[in-house]
Amino acid sequence: MYKISICNFVFGTTVLQPRMAVARLKNQNPGVGHCTKVPRNVNMEKLQHGYLFPEIERHELLHSNKYPHAKVINLGIGDTTEPLPTIITSTMVDFVNGLSTTQGYKGYGPEQGEKPLRKAIADAFYKDLGIKPTEVFVSDGAQCDITRLQLLLGSDVKIAVQDPSFPAYIDSSVIIGQAGELVARAGKYRNIEYMKCGPMNNFFPDLSATSRSEIIFFCSPNNPTGHAATRKQLEQLVHFAKVNGSIIIFDSAYAAYITDDSPRSIFEIPGAREVAIEVSSFSKFSGFTGVRLGWTVVPEELLFSNGFPVVNDFNRIMCTCFNGASNIAQAGGLACLSPEGFKAVRSRINYYMENARILVNALASLGLTVYGGKNAPYVWVHLPGSKSWKVFADILEKTHIITVRAVALAPLVKST
Amino acid sequence: MYKISICNFVFGTTVLQPRMAVARLKNQNPGVGHCTKVPRNVNMEKLQHGYLFPEIERHELLHSNKYPHAKVINLGIGDTTEPLPTIITSTMVDFVNGLSTTQGYKGYGPEQGEKPLRKAIADAFYKDLGIKPTEVFVSDGAQCDITRLQLLLGSDVKIAVQDPSFPAYIDSSVIIGQAGELVARAGKYRNIEYMKCGPMNNFFPDLSATSRSEIIFFCSPNNPTGHAATRKQLEQLVHFAKVNGSIIIFDSAYAAYITDDSPRSIFEIPGAREVAIEVSSFSKFSGFTGVRLGWTVVPEELLFSNGFPVVNDFNRIMCTCFNGASNIAQAGGLACLSPEGFKAVRSRINYYMENARILVNALASLGLTVYGGKNAPYVWVHLPGSKSWKVFADILEKTHIITVRAVALAPLVKST
Repeated sequence: MYKISICNFVFGTTVLQPRMAVARLKNQNPGVGHCTKVPRNVNMEKLQHGYLFPEIERHELLHSNKYPHAKVINLGIGDTTEPLPTIITSTMVDFVNGLSTTQGYKGYGPEQGEKPLRKAIADAFYKDLGIKPTEVFVSDGAQCDITRLQLLLGSDVKIAVQDPSFPAYIDSSVIIGQAGELVARAGKYRNIEYMKCGPMNNFFPDLSATSRSEIIFFCSPNNPTGHAATRKQLEQLVHFAKVNGSIIIFDSAYAAYITDDSPRSIFEIPGAREVAIEVSSFSKFSGFTGVRLGWTVVPEELLFSNGFPVVNDFNRIMCTCFNGASNIAQAGGLACLSPEGFKAVRSRINYYMENARILVNALASLGLTVYGGKNAPYVWVHLPGSKSWKVFADILEKTHIITVRAVALAPLVKST
Repeated sequence: MYKISICNFVFGTTVLQPRMAVARLKNQNPGVGHCTKVPRNVNMEKLQHGYLFPEIERHELLHSNKYPHAKVINLGIGDTTEPLPTIITSTMVDFVNGLSTTQGYKGYGPEQGEKPLRKAIADAFYKDLGIKPTEVFVSDGAQCDITRLQLLLGSDVKIAVQDPSFPAYIDSSVIIGQAGELVARAGKYRNIEYMKCGPMNNFFPDLSATSRSEIIFFCSPNNPTGHAATRKQLEQLVHFAKVNGSIIIFDSAYAAYITDDSPRSIFEIPGAREVAIEVSSFSKFSGFTGVRLGWTVVPEELLFSNGFPVVNDFNRIMCTCFNGASNIAQAGGLACLSPEGFKAVRSRINYYMENARILVNALASLGLTVYGGKNAPYVWVHLPGSKSWKVFADILEKTHIITVRAVALAPLVKST
């Protein structure tokens, strides 16, 4: 299996003498210069080598230097490539032009997001699910909200993650101090519960073998396996969280890619309001990866063990550690949720899914076992007997394709 | 003295039975509903009542309900009010229109910001100060960067703040777990060093009476007192940090408002590269409070006690916990730093400073002692013998003016 979750990386041990190493790299005398007496954060020391995506970028750069004429195709980070529909950009243009007028100028907005956008998100994604606009917090993206949720939770909780999983859950957990020691050989942290998900269990963890943790990160449709959890699976998950007194942080960033009747939100499952937070994003829904817009839903019924509403603390975090998403991005987000905007955005999603289909068919025709690509733009390929980075390097060397996650967001183009 | 720093608030004790209280407020039976077993973060429990600015908003709303016909003037949060120069918005419009084209579409950008913008910031604000573009990290604002710096530092450091100070330094410190217990009577945290700044010491702390702390937050021109530290004062500060092995986090968000020869950056002081980080913003410089854009400078020479470069960890934080500022805001920021853009932005700053002068003169003509308004848009008024919130309430009740911080960004208009 071509596994690429960061928890499976073994990147060598921490540099024990970083000053020496840095100085050597820079060809300097390490004895020179002033050192502060501020200790390096022990949590930062525990992080593995580099965050996944910049690490991939580094490999891409090295490859481009080696093959300056190669046309590299990047299927790595899952970036969007298609121009935004003009109905979205024309709304943003109007908003930006307004900023030059007395009537249209806007300064600070509410840290939680503009009211019409909060309402539009509740209406568009949570219709009939009872989510109030005041439970929707607009942000600059899901990855940023994950860190803010970790700030809210603090270091005294244990998290569980799907294995493989999006690396931000684990890395933010390490930074906030929840993860415990790194077991270098396994590339895993002692205090994180890794819930194995693969073809053997229909990409859903064996909950009977899963230890209790306060927080369960769960991404569906899953990045990177491409699997969307079924209603029955999510009912089991909500039940498991309720019995254990856990909070699910449900990442639905790819919900718009679901083509069958898999739930698009955890709040489709009865009882989820008492056990779940949902993090989501305009990035893959409407190509806002660079524009930056996301949201998080925290239901009022979600309570800490002392009965205090989680939403109150999240509101405090958003007001103190964040200052609102760009008002231009918010204007664009509102346009995406208009009937015409929604339709236009839909056409882009269909395009990306067509790319996924092309990839799946091509890989299958090579005799490979392929998962995903049906309810998500991610394609998960079985390449037995090799380590992730080894496969990554082989594919890059032979085809000039960046994979790591075989993402189908970029069109399939023959490499040169 | 009309003191408004959050460290001086006494807001009553923490609600001991929040679930009960919340239920009572919502007229619900507190026994009903599921509680998770996730403990509330003890650091969140230590935060005082509400973050300053939302708290002010709450007062404003109550006042508007009481006097629905009053025209309230908000001099509170220090918002910008003047339309953006068209040279800035037209650049953003071009960028947004480009997002609808194959050539102009952009997905994920570098988490650290677009290279041309990093270079332009280095050139515009740090000319001849030796700051490299790679030491400049573009962000969605200074307040957000302050939290990210706290994430980088972790809980095992002690911070010092000017007293009074911008509330985000203290609140982010509490959230990350540095602050220690709250001494409710004093409204101060045990493990934070409060450096008194006022007319008695020319708004610069008595460093001989200041205990060592790992981190010194220092804002100049100061929010809220309006005082810009002199070169000599900043030399003392850098010396103090060097001797103590401390790191200064210098907030220069109002540097563009300096009218005399006070340093606009901590990096004007020799030796600062080894002891200081600088956080800054386009918010007050170019009216981007709602557009959201800021930056942080971390020099390569700044090292933790083990010799590890701070910039490496900040880079990791930016890549893991942040996903880049909105690319539209970045395009706008670049336009602000063009020669024409800079000139246009300058005219807005002059306008705000003219407002400050009007306020200072009016308040002085009432016989009040007034500070600030010369190198910053903030005006600091001596109103002896009263508590902050009492003065706040009196002014609001009698004049329909929101003060807390007597900010001159809004034009002085007679209330009705």
